Formats: sequence, C-alpha cells, structure tokens
Amino acid sequence: MGAMRIATLTSGGDCPGLNAVIRGIVRTASNEFGSTVVGYQDGWEGLLADRRVQLYDDEDIDRILLRGGTILGTGRLHPDKFRAGIDQVKANLADAGIDALIPIGGEGTLKGAKWLADNGIPVVGVPKTIDNDVNGTDFTFGFDSAVSVATDAIDRLHTTAESHNRVMIVEVMGRHVGWIALHAGMAGGAHYTVIPEVPFDISEICKRMERRFQMGEKYGIIVVAEGALPKEGTMELREGEVDQFGHKTFTGIGQQIADEVHRRLGHDVRTTVLGHIQRGGTPTAFDRVLATRYGVRAARACHEGQFNTVVALKGERIRMISFDEAVGTLKKVPMERWVTAQAMFG
Amino acid sequence: MGAMRIATLTSGGDCPGLNAVIRGIVRTASNEFGSTVVGYQDGWEGLLADRRVQLYDDEDIDRILLRGGTILGTGRLHPDKFRAGIDQVKANLADAGIDALIPIGGEGTLKGAKWLADNGIPVVGVPKTIDNDVNGTDFTFGFDSAVSVATDAIDRLHTTAESHNRVMIVEVMGRHVGWIALHAGMAGGAHYTVIPEVPFDISEICKRMERRFQMGEKYGIIVVAEGALPKEGTMELREGEVDQFGHKTFTGIGQQIADEVHRRLGHDVRTTVLGHIQRGGTPTAFDRVLATRYGVRAARACHEGQFNTVVALKGERIRMISFDEAVGTLKKVPMERWVTAQAMFG
Amino acid sequence: MGAMRIATLTSGGDCPGLNAVIRGIVRTASNEFGSTVVGYQDGWEGLLADRRVQLYDDEDIDRILLRGGTILGTGRLHPDKFRAGIDQVKANLADAGIDALIPIGGEGTLKGAKWLADNGIPVVGVPKTIDNDVNGTDFTFGFDSAVSVATDAIDRLHTTAESHNRVMIVEVMGRHVGWIALHAGMAGGAHYTVIPEVPFDISEICKRMERRFQMGEKYGIIVVAEGALPKEGTMELREGEVDQFGHKTFTGIGQQIADEVHRRLGHDVRTTVLGHIQRGGTPTAFDRVLATRYGVRAARACHEGQFNTVVALKGERIRMISFDEAVGTLKKVPMERWVTAQAMFG
Amino acid sequence: MGAMRIATLTSGGDCPGLNAVIRGIVRTASNEFGSTVVGYQDGWEGLLADRRVQLYDDEDIDRILLRGGTILGTGRLHPDKFRAGIDQVKANLADAGIDALIPIGGEGTLKGAKWLADNGIPVVGVPKTIDNDVNGTDFTFGFDSAVSVATDAIDRLHTTAESHNRVMIVEVMGRHVGWIALHAGMAGGAHYTVIPEVPFDISEICKRMERRFQMGEKYGIIVVAEGALPKEGTMELREGEVDQFGHKTFTGIGQQIADEVHRRLGHDVRTTVLGHIQRGGTPTAFDRVLATRYGVRAARACHEGQFNTVVALKGERIRMISFDEAVGTLKKVPMERWVTAQAMFG
Repeated sequence: MGAMRIATLTSGGDCPGLNAVIRGIVRTASNEFGSTVVGYQDGWEGLLADRRVQLYDDEDIDRILLRGGTILGTGRLHPDKFRAGIDQVKANLADAGIDALIPIGGEGTLKGAKWLADNGIPVVGVPKTIDNDVNGTDFTFGFDSAVSVATDAIDRLHTTAESHNRVMIVEVMGRHVGWIALHAGMAGGAHYTVIPEVPFDISEICKRMERRFQMGEKYGIIVVAEGALPKEGTMELREGEVDQFGHKTFTGIGQQIADEVHRRLGHDVRTTVLGHIQRGGTPTAFDRVLATRYGVRAARACHEGQFNTVVALKGERIRMISFDEAVGTLKKVPMERWVTAQAMFG
Repeated sequence: MGAMRIATLTSGGDCPGLNAVIRGIVRTASNEFGSTVVGYQDGWEGLLADRRVQLYDDEDIDRILLRGGTILGTGRLHPDKFRAGIDQVKANLADAGIDALIPIGGEGTLKGAKWLADNGIPVVGVPKTIDNDVNGTDFTFGFDSAVSVATDAIDRLHTTAESHNRVMIVEVMGRHVGWIALHAGMAGGAHYTVIPEVPFDISEICKRMERRFQMGEKYGIIVVAEGALPKEGTMELREGEVDQFGHKTFTGIGQQIADEVHRRLGHDVRTTVLGHIQRGGTPTAFDRVLATRYGVRAARACHEGQFNTVVALKGERIRMISFDEAVGTLKKVPMERWVTAQAMFG
Repeated sequence: MGAMRIATLTSGGDCPGLNAVIRGIVRTASNEFGSTVVGYQDGWEGLLADRRVQLYDDEDIDRILLRGGTILGTGRLHPDKFRAGIDQVKANLADAGIDALIPIGGEGTLKGAKWLADNGIPVVGVPKTIDNDVNGTDFTFGFDSAVSVATDAIDRLHTTAESHNRVMIVEVMGRHVGWIALHAGMAGGAHYTVIPEVPFDISEICKRMERRFQMGEKYGIIVVAEGALPKEGTMELREGEVDQFGHKTFTGIGQQIADEVHRRLGHDVRTTVLGHIQRGGTPTAFDRVLATRYGVRAARACHEGQFNTVVALKGERIRMISFDEAVGTLKKVPMERWVTAQAMFG
Repeated sequence: MGAMRIATLTSGGDCPGLNAVIRGIVRTASNEFGSTVVGYQDGWEGLLADRRVQLYDDEDIDRILLRGGTILGTGRLHPDKFRAGIDQVKANLADAGIDALIPIGGEGTLKGAKWLADNGIPVVGVPKTIDNDVNGTDFTFGFDSAVSVATDAIDRLHTTAESHNRVMIVEVMGRHVGWIALHAGMAGGAHYTVIPEVPFDISEICKRMERRFQMGEKYGIIVVAEGALPKEGTMELREGEVDQFGHKTFTGIGQQIADEVHRRLGHDVRTTVLGHIQRGGTPTAFDRVLATRYGVRAARACHEGQFNTVVALKGERIRMISFDEAVGTLKKVPMERWVTAQAMFG
C-alpha cells in the first residue's frame, strides 16, 4: 500500500506510554511509508466533534517519548452517544481524508473500535490499561510503570513501618483485577496481598500478622487492590458518602481492613492510598519500548491492510489479534500466579 | 578528653537520615577518639527499660547509611512518664557506664533532652524532623527527602491532570508548618499552595483556577499542607469519625477543598494524600550528608565537653546552639518566603 | 517428594535480582515444603572448597529482595579446574546431605550445570544475565534493570547534548549481543543505535547526524553496544594498551566512533561509557518479580524431581526447558527487531 | 520602578536548574511587575549576534521547570571576542529596548557580567555551576543534582564491588574543586575520597584498602575528583593522546589510580567515569527551589535598581552580593570539611 492518511486518538483513563505509541505511529508512518498522521483530541468526543491536529514527524513528536499522559487529551464518551454519532464519525473521517483509524484505549475503547470496524471503518486497535487486564497480550504498557510507582512506595513504607512496629496497608489500583497488587506486592516484599479475584478472609490476614509478631518480626506490609472484597459473611463493609460524581462511595477498602486489623490485634495500623500517582508521569523503559513497538506495529498493520485487529505482545513478538480475542472478558490473575505470590508471604 | 562511652537513641516519628546520624556518631567516636557507642531501643522507653545494643564500627553500621527508618526503633513516651522515670534513667546510664547521651528527635524529644541536661546528664541533642520546623538550623535532615518524594508525586500528577482537564489536589505533610508544601509546591510547579501559616480563602483558590481555565490552560495543581485551615468564616469544615486512636478526625482538608472547588466551579477535581511515603525510604544525598555531618559533630561535641547543646546547620557550617534557641517555638514559613512562592502561582 | 536439602550458588558477573532468586528459593522451600537451603559462596569455587552457609527463612533473607549483587558472592572458575574437581564436588554435596543443586548463572554457568547434571547430580539451572542473551526465555532478570539505568542516563544526556549542540555517544554493555543497546536506545529516544549483530557503517552514521543538523535539529544521541564492530573496510580501529589483566585493550568503540564522527563532520562529539553502574544496585520491580518467580519455580522443580532443566519465561508463564534449549548459542537480536528500532531513528 | 524589559541568557556548561531560573525571572517579571522578558540564545554569542526570542509567561515557560539543560542554548565565547564586541552589545540592547540584563553562568560568565556592569550596562548576575565553587553563596543550583546522580551511581557500585571482591574507583566531576567528590563520597559511603584541594598519597590509599581486606571486608569504593593530583614525587602520571579539540589529554586520573592500586595490591580494581550524566537531566527538588528563588530575586533586583550585583544563598535567605565577592577566587573545600569527610572513611 502506498502513502496513507492515518488518524489516531486516545480514550479512557490516561496511562504512561500513550505518547510513546503516538510517536511510534507518526515516525513509522513517516519513515517507512511517507504517510501522514492526524490526532483527534479528547478521545471519541474529539472524533465526533472533528477536533483534530496534524502530527508532524518533528522534534516535538520526538520529545513526547518520556512524557506521561497524552498530548491528544482523553475523554470518556457514553457508548450511546458514541453509537448515535456513527454517521458523523464517518463523515468526519471522509472529509479529513482518513484511510485508517488507530484508537488507543482500554476495554471500552476497544469495544467501540470493534463496533466502528463492524460498521466498515478500517480500524487497528492498541490496547491500553495500567491494569494489565486485556486478554491476548502478555502485558499492556502502563502496567510496568504503575507497578514501579507502587513498588517504590512500598519500599519506602517498609522502613517506616519497621521503625514504628506497625502494620502498614497500601491500597493500590485494581478495581476488577489484582495484577498491580500482585506484582507490586511481590516486588515490594509484601507480607500479604489482597486481590479482587480472591475474596479475602480478615481472620486469615490477622493470623498472618499475628504470627509475624510472635516470631519477633516488628511490622507487616499488606498490599490491597482497591477492588478487593471480603469472603461473604466474614466482614461487614461501611458505606461512605456521596461524592462529587453522585456515586455513593464506601470508605476505601484499605482503611476498612486497617480498622478491623487494629480492632482485632490492637496493633498500630496505618493506611496509604497511592491513588493517581500510579497512572501519571514518565513511563518506565519497559513501557516505552512496549508502547513504541505497539505504535510501529499498528502503523504497519494499517499499511498492510490488516484491519479489524488489535496489536498484542506474545512472548518476544508483537502480533495482531482479533477484537474478539482482546475484549469481552477481563484478563484476571490466574490461580497459579496467586499461589506463587502466596509462597512469598510470611 | 579521652575515649568515652556514648549512648544514642531515636525518638518521635521516623525520618530519612536517622541511620546516617547513628553511623556518623559511631564512626567518629571510633575513628577519631577510640570511643564506643551503645544504642537504646525504641526511644525514651528503651532508655527507661534499659533496652540497649552495642553499636560496632563494622560493615553493618556502614551499610545503614542509605536505609530509611532507624535501626534503633523509635517510640513516643508521655512526658509525665518520662519525667517520673528520671532516677531510673540516671541509674541505667550509670550502670552502663555512659559518659554522654545523644538523643535524636524533634521538638518533644529535644525538650526532654533539655530536661535531662537540666538534671545533670551530659547531653548533646540532634534535631530531627521532616517538617523543617526547628529553630536555629537552616535545614533539618529528612526534610529534603520528604520534599523530593512529594515533588516526584506532583511531577506525575501534572500529566494525569492535564490529560483529563482536572484540578488535582495534593495533600502533603505539615500539621503546623508549611515548609514541605511550600518547597514541594515550588519544586513541583504547583499553581497554588496552601500552608498552615496563611489561612486560605477558598474563593481566592477558585478564582485562580477559573482564570487558568479561562486562559486556555487545561488543568491545575494545588498543593495543600495537611494542617491548612480556612480563613474564619470562609468555609465550613466537615468533621469525620473517631479513629483507632480515639481521636475525632475530620475528613482530610485536601478532600474538603476538592469538594468545595468542584461545587463552585463544576470542574472534575481529584485528591491525592501522599501520607507515609513522605517519611520512609532511602534519604536523598543532601540528607545523607547533613545527617552524617550532624552525627560527626555530635560525637565531637561529646568529646569536647560541649554539653547542653544542639547541633545545627548555619550556612555552610555545623554549629552548636543552645536548647533554648532550638526549642520553644516552631520555625514557621516567614511571610517573605510565602510571597516568593506566590510569584510562581498562576 | 518430602522435605529436601537444597543448595544454591551464584556464578559469573553480578546481576540485579540474584538475591531475589535466592529469597524465592529459600521461602518456597520453607513455606511450601518445609525444606532447608544452603548457599555456596563465590560460585563454583565455593562449591569446590566447601564454603557454605545455611540460609534461614528469616527477616534477613526477606530484606535482600531489593539489594543488588549477591549475598553469596560470585566468582569465575576456569572450566578445566571446574571439571577436574567433579569428585570433590560430589563428595562435598554428599557430605552436606544436599539433595539438589540450583546454580544461578549465565551461559558458562549453565554449561557447567549441564555437565554436573550429565554426571549424575540433580540440578535445576536458573539463567542469569543482564545481556538477555539466553535462548528459550523471553527475558532474563537483570536485563530490565540494566536497560533502566542506561535509559535514565540517556534521558539526562539529551538535555546536555541539546544545550551544547553536540553529538553524544553512549556506550552501553553488550559484548556479543545488542539487547541492552536496542532497548535503551528505543526507550531513550536515541537517534541511532549500533549493535554487534549488525556491523556499522560510519558513513551511514555520519549521514544520519548530518541530516539532523540540516533539518534544524541541534543535537544527536547515538547508543553503541560495547561489542559493536564496523563493516569490514569502513573504519580502522585503534588498539589500546595492555590492562591490569594482561589483555590487550582497544580504546572503547564509543570513543572511536566519536572521534571519527568529529573528524568527518567537525561537530562537537562527546562519549559517555556507562560501565558498571548497569549491573549494580536495586533491581527494577519487573526484575524482582521475574527473579522471584524463577526462584519459586526452581525450588518447586527440585521437589517435583524435574532435574536437568532450566527455568524460563515464556509469555506469561514460567516453564522448564532443557539445558540444550538454553545453552550452546547466544540469543541475538533478530533482524525484525532491528528494523523496528530503525523506524524510530532520525 | 515600573514595568521593564529584561533580557537574560545562559552561558558556559549546562546545569540542571537553568530553566527554573529562566522561569522564575519570567513569572516574577510578569506577575509582580507586568514586565516582559527576552532571552538571548547560545550565551554571549547570541547577545553579540542579536539572536533573541521573546519569553512569554505561558504554559510553555511553566513546563520547563523540570527540564534539564537550557531552552536558550549556551555557548563559550572567548573573552577577547566578547570584549571587542562591547559596542555591538550596547547597540543590540538599546535597539531591543532592554532595561536590564540577567546573565546566568559560572565564574567566566560572571566576570564578563561584571565587565559589562563596569561599562555601564545594568546587570544582575546569577551564579551557575554544578561544581559549587562560587564564593559568597552557600550552594549553587545544579550541584545537588550532580551529587545526587553521582550518589545513585555509587549506591549501585557498592553491590557489584562487593559481589566481586573488588576495589571500585568512581571518577566524578571537579577539575579544580572537590565539592562533588566530597558530598557524593559522603552520601555514597565511599571508603576513601580524593579531591583536588588535597594532593593524594597513593600509598595511603593502598594502605586504607589493604586494611579493609585484612579486617574481612570484601571490597572498597574510592571516589576521585577528575582534577585530583598526586602529592609531588609519589606517583607518575601517564599522558594520553591528543583529542578532537587539539588538547593533549592524559588518561583519566581514576584509571591511573586504579592501575596503581592494582599493581601494588594485586586486587581486581575497576574504574567508572560518570561524565556528562552529572550535568544533564531533571534537577532535584532542592535545585528547582534554589534556582526558582534565584530567578525571583534577580527579577526583583532589576526592578529595585540593585544592579551590579549577584544573587546568593546565605543560610535561609537569598541576598545580593557584589561581583567582587562572587568572582576572583574559587570556593574550595575547606580543610575542616575534609577532616569531617575523613571521619567516615574506613
């Protein structure tokens, strides 16, 4: 295929490495095919509203490699609005002379991408999630950065917990899957880790901490995924207030586990909620390489006519998988990984 | 003075650099004077209970330079208990053949140290606080590490705030003084900073953010010291629950400012509470050097008979100041520094 | 299989993550099987000389997770000496009641391990190399840490190169393979990368840099693997002096490329040789997880009787491969990866 | 004074924090005085050639806070050319309507600035050097960043040196003064440090290392400033080749000490030359704060008519000093600091 006009956009929560993908697309399009790239701003919304910028293969694009976030901005559009706008999307792409679209996003974005592909738009998807929960790919970019930030934090908390004879609870991201908790817990030498895939038993957690203190250890570190839930009937959760988004919240699960461990053991227990720092900032070298390779492969897929596909890492190679392989279910932590993590507890 | 037997202990909240001070004392005592050092465990409590360990000038002491926390543990003893135990303390020091005591700690610890000195015990104090609020010294060790951790976090939050068109609130340590907030805010390029020394006006904060958005900026970062309070009558604070320590808490000030900014401007506002990661982990190079110099100077002061003193950094030199110069009032952020910080807002 | 007595040792160059493997072995042996572990010191030499230490599943072993290097020390024994000592090795293992041996090391170590296995000793190998050149495994631990250190350095050099309108050459590790150079170059946004797998053409390098300057860019970054060599006949290399090990050295290839680029283009060109900092220090979170999983799997393999094998990462899983799959040839950078890297040059 | 038109430029070697100074000047000029700022490119050369850019108080200037290098570029102009161009400089400043000039640079730059001031140009100097060798100021920005980079590297080298039973030599910047070596050595726990201020005795260094090995330690770390020289008659230095700049070089002092220690002790000795990574990249939080305060103060000094001055840090405050206090001699490491450093050797 000759030179093309490719469009890209980033959608959903931001993620370290988004800019590296964009750079990878722009450079490959330019260097290998003499093609041009435009970016739609603020996700699907920008595509609908035709807010686009030309992305030149220049010094500016070169520099974004190590910048967190996304130069295109991101957004969350309700699927209904998105679907209702299909004619507008088609018109916008046609008017701008776009030959192929590369949406970069998570589960929701890829579903939207598949729907566009089903409606005849030439699409190549790039999976993006710090949660690492996309099927068909060994890793998603952003995950390694999130784990690194969480691990740095846990490293710091060890010494403060130890100096004060404390149990320290670290709540990390992961509403539906425990990948960040599992990896950060393993990398940070946590003494227990709680993931959404395995409902926790508060008695078991207390027993573990108690045994540590009995053996003369002075402290304990527990990593908790924000989506962790107790085994039915083992612990009642307090609900919280209604937040600015109108959602009823419950006080963070980390704090609730902390309060209960304190109530049962009497020990000083503190909670740290890592929050947004896990998804911002410079990507790790690992994520920059992975994101760059995704960008290169996506740009090539467009020129090779491999539409209706998603880039994925399998072992040492980047391969194209189908939307159906990528979306539909979340990639959860398998039981064997959980058992391996447990071997390190104690 | 010839070889001595020196004791040291760490008391109060932990702080990056405590181990570097201990190492500095042990090495200097050994290298320069052929003296020996013992450490009391868990602060004043260990001194009262005579829990002590010999600190040898060996590979183990060498390694602790970059370790956060304190190898001696720390604790908080009620001043009444402490004062009631003076005879026990004297007896313990005498039994162990201690010639001089170097307590390392914050405001409270230094007050205790002064009281011991007043009671005839040869004491040299080492000021310790990540809050940088000790008078008579340009910096305390631990402060630079805390500011670095907070600055790293703010760096990360910029890109995520920008990608999502958000106001991001970062709550940092500082119950009584705003040094960490001021420095981290300045180093992290915050668009506004709230410190305990200057009651904040929520309208002013909102006006600043609004102006940013009007000028086309996409986001704002506000750094808030945990001890920040509103100007009287400008904003009502919600109280929270009673925590495990029996204290009535109020929901963090950062979150309350976030909710109010959201209510007034309608913008998406998020809060990150950095918490304990600010006081744990490897000290920065700056803090390692400062803490080492403190340790060296404290050990020398003992051998030179300069008791009833506190080590302090003044310009390029370590000097000995009196307890009265160090304790009594907190070193607050002076108005001129606040004005300088303001020059960078916007 | 019931409780065992397992021995481990580390051999060859040090590598971030070695201690995480040791910890993984000790914890798994203890937690899952009630087994005990001993460590031989300084690699094969310690095995021959029967220098061993008991490794207890305690706080000390817990702490080593984030420590670089190896608590067992390492060494390089000439293969002839090693083979001549087989009877001694067997006697030592028998005397110590060792049921299985887990050697952790690179190509040479694994060859030695295979030879021991061929001689009837129950062996499970763990591949270790920052160079990532072991076949049959997607990644070796230590590689990600080395790439991270190199990438951090390249990030720093960008700004200094740009401020001074310079070409900056960064020489990284990789005597036989270019994995570190390729990944660090891609992660660091290098404008050209030279790897041993592809003999370089100095004219091509100069042309690239010249084009940059012509297009108004102010600087260039070139990453060079230490084992890079010019295409025959394109550039003569200067030999250097004889070093302390009696080897004839040649001045580093990075410096030689720098001198030639300067000679041809007239531009200011500087070289930085990263050297040993690439192999020391705290492992990245990625390497801690991978090394831990290797340790867990190796300990389990011993208890499951899976001897004469090597642990390996394939996709998301740790699998056992044969020695023949792991050793014999080095895993080189395949041409397709090199082409992908090239897409980012310019 | 009312609104002004201020010019700034950066000259000499680049240094982390230069952009923070520029940002501090622009913001303060705009926020506090409604003034405008222009930047001359590539140091004095750009002033002579009238290459200037307007610096707006916008998002772009806001972002440069954490960027290493200098957005204005830098250069080195021969003093003779500089002085010969005085009329051109005056004409350029007059044509551009510049009311005050803020040159940011080291010893040489400040001398040039003083000369301009003597010739009637309203000048406020900002001292800049990673070497920390400017008189009258406690610290210069960039120094803390350089020490941090060097300390990180030394941290990494400890574990690799220990695993291999090696003496490791780390050569750091410091041609005329030993500040970086002294601080990085102290922060990194070096077992010996060599600075230009104190000619070294190779026998003393060897004795120190030998004693370590005799006491059962397995390795040693020696930090060497690049400008270190042996005590007369104690060690002959080899000269090297002629480099691209036509200067006769000698093989680095670190390598020469390494070779000699190896020759005398027989131990494995390795050298790492940190080089340019010490002056590039994101400044530390400390340097960002200091550089920002310098920028604020310099801008205010212009508006307050405090010309013919240099900003300086004294204790907790920024003060204005005279050129004569800042330049003329280098601020060397005083003997007492050297003695304190020595207390930590061993």
